[in-house]
Amino acid sequence: MKSVSVKKFGGTSVGSIERIERVADRLCESYKNGERFVVVASAMSGETNRLVQLAHDIHPKARGGEAYDLLLASGEQVSISLLTLALLKRGVPASPLLAFQLGIKTNSIYSKARIQNIKAGELKALLEEDKIPVVAGFQGINDKDKVTTLGRGGSDTTAVALAAALEADVCEIFTDVDGVYSTDPRIEPNASKIKTLSYEEMMEMASLGSKVLHFRCVEIGAKYNVPIHVRSTFVMDEGTWIINPEKSMEAPVVSAITHDPKVTILAAEPAPEGVDFLSKLFGKLSEKEVLIDIISQMKGDKGQRVAFSLPDEDIDEAQSVLKSFLTSDSEITVIKHASKVSIVGVGMKTHPGVAARFFKALNKADISVSLVTTSDIKVSAVIEREKTNDAVRALHEEFDLSKSS
Amino acid sequence: MKSVSVKKFGGTSVGSIERIERVADRLCESYKNGERFVVVASAMSGETNRLVQLAHDIHPKARGGEAYDLLLASGEQVSISLLTLALLKRGVPASPLLAFQLGIKTNSIYSKARIQNIKAGELKALLEEDKIPVVAGFQGINDKDKVTTLGRGGSDTTAVALAAALEADVCEIFTDVDGVYSTDPRIEPNASKIKTLSYEEMMEMASLGSKVLHFRCVEIGAKYNVPIHVRSTFVMDEGTWIINPEKSMEAPVVSAITHDPKVTILAAEPAPEGVDFLSKLFGKLSEKEVLIDIISQMKGDKGQRVAFSLPDEDIDEAQSVLKSFLTSDSEITVIKHASKVSIVGVGMKTHPGVAARFFKALNKADISVSLVTTSDIKVSAVIEREKTNDAVRALHEEFDLSKSS
Repeated sequence: MKSVSVKKFGGTSVGSIERIERVADRLCESYKNGERFVVVASAMSGETNRLVQLAHDIHPKARGGEAYDLLLASGEQVSISLLTLALLKRGVPASPLLAFQLGIKTNSIYSKARIQNIKAGELKALLEEDKIPVVAGFQGINDKDKVTTLGRGGSDTTAVALAAALEADVCEIFTDVDGVYSTDPRIEPNASKIKTLSYEEMMEMASLGSKVLHFRCVEIGAKYNVPIHVRSTFVMDEGTWIINPEKSMEAPVVSAITHDPKVTILAAEPAPEGVDFLSKLFGKLSEKEVLIDIISQMKGDKGQRVAFSLPDEDIDEAQSVLKSFLTSDSEITVIKHASKVSIVGVGMKTHPGVAARFFKALNKADISVSLVTTSDIKVSAVIEREKTNDAVRALHEEFDLSKSS
Repeated sequence: MKSVSVKKFGGTSVGSIERIERVADRLCESYKNGERFVVVASAMSGETNRLVQLAHDIHPKARGGEAYDLLLASGEQVSISLLTLALLKRGVPASPLLAFQLGIKTNSIYSKARIQNIKAGELKALLEEDKIPVVAGFQGINDKDKVTTLGRGGSDTTAVALAAALEADVCEIFTDVDGVYSTDPRIEPNASKIKTLSYEEMMEMASLGSKVLHFRCVEIGAKYNVPIHVRSTFVMDEGTWIINPEKSMEAPVVSAITHDPKVTILAAEPAPEGVDFLSKLFGKLSEKEVLIDIISQMKGDKGQRVAFSLPDEDIDEAQSVLKSFLTSDSEITVIKHASKVSIVGVGMKTHPGVAARFFKALNKADISVSLVTTSDIKVSAVIEREKTNDAVRALHEEFDLSKSS
């Protein structure tokens, strides 16, 4: 088997006929230079939203079902067909492929399915014939041959999973930004492009609200040691590499500041005491694929008080699960309009005092903290949503991440 | 197995959210009355054209390939997902199904594929559970699991083929007209709705340019004796039944006047003599799925002259095939802007003199005829395209088909 890569193009990269033509030009050049690769594409930008809207107009609770996933999966079917046609017009042999044709098997949790297995045989056969497989991202099939979708960032996950199955040299994620930044440049104009990140850091950043790559995609990359290269579709420069760091590499103390502006806090008091309650509660929430983030437990005025943060979108589901564990005298408090800011860096492991600097910087900017969590490579705090940008800027300055540095 | 029907809805019937809701209302009512059925839907009106345009913008010769068919098949995927959601909202259990999930196997002639086999097991299982299968029309898969499409009228064909596989009582074709008319009411306002037609007549009408049903669909209906009921989506009245006529039934001499306004005549002179040339020529054309209609052969000024009529759209393909059989001194003539008018009726078999009345009527209207063909249930003539409407009206009057009669 020749050396091979996976090239993934997001929705904005294939968002119009003109952009599809430009992507095809770039792929055609790579192909004629002897590169062999698999292409993965998202739906044309706006298309998934259009389909979501159509579903919502008919059935407000469509999400998470068979028909909803089948509907959404049509978006990638359109984009890969058009991209294949653009390659064929250039005389480059290419073939469009859906999940069922490749055997991209997932579990059956519609709209949030997880890839379980991929048969690489069909892709390898096409690559041996010097053809370019153009694969629909975001979709899979379950054990009943129903079409599933992978949720947010699903096409990235498809790409890295295919790269793992093919033992590809690299998975290139082509996107409308030219790499991963030290923080959101719309908030901090001095944000700088990061050259390399470890899988560990990128996973933290993804779970902390960085939109560049989805957690699951980086997790698969880490598990199968697939180098991921995040780069611009229309600029040739190097982007950001996500790799296993060399042991000798001197890591910065903090690599990036992330923020997640859509956090809600759910608190209950009095709640049952003990680990058993929490383990059952979070077991049930995890069954419903509700991701709980920061958890705190302490004595309140009326007994045990439990509080946790979670994404805005899961609040209804979480609240009903929580209620099923409480007695009628318990009170649930929902604190909306929170956000989370975090610092991430593998260097923290060897540099003490980072958390102290984190809180000092927030304090100096007059920002108060409701929930906190730390790991050996991150510190996170839940704050008021309207203070998000101030917090990001204060931390970016504290940890000296600006371009000039 | 309970009694079951197939209900097919065309693109205009599912052309907007509001129309999908109305179709769902009608289906919900039937379901609650105890009817059990399979639904087949076309793409939302305008969607297939939008996709064709996208493909054409990228690759003018996209049609007839794997990527083109995959692109077009996405249209039905959207409409069946939305229709399923509308049924689920009404509390009616329904499940969307694509060709690969049902095993609708076709040959590999992209954009004009023919259904070869359908496994009814999955549909029967769903019907046994009192679920409504909502099937994507127009698509199939070939023996390499590639998605194919069936060409014009493909969703009707899907519906009748499913009805045959299920041994359904009836295949109802819901459409924006309320039945099959004695001729196009836009040309002849006195056109009358036909109550029953034989498969034979409907097949003739389909091949003669009637747009209501596709030939292949009626052919399958005839082969498996599936009663087809063409009726309005939004009006409850009976439409037109296509069935095997009772032996005793008194058939009208002529049931309908059809016209096909997109005919081209291709002529060559000198052409090789003998049956061998014609058999090879039409063999080759049929391989390319070019449908030749009327053929004439006679002595011309420069030797043997062969002429035939065919659909406008196939003219390039046909011309290049014809050329490959000719020597360099042969001349090809293309006569564009022709049309074909026909009379159809099983009653012709037992009533002589019908052809004579046909030509007399055209002659009286000052319309000259270039090519003619007859069978025991039809007479057709190729005429100048601009005289089409005059011819239709003259024949409608001659054979006394108006409402008042």
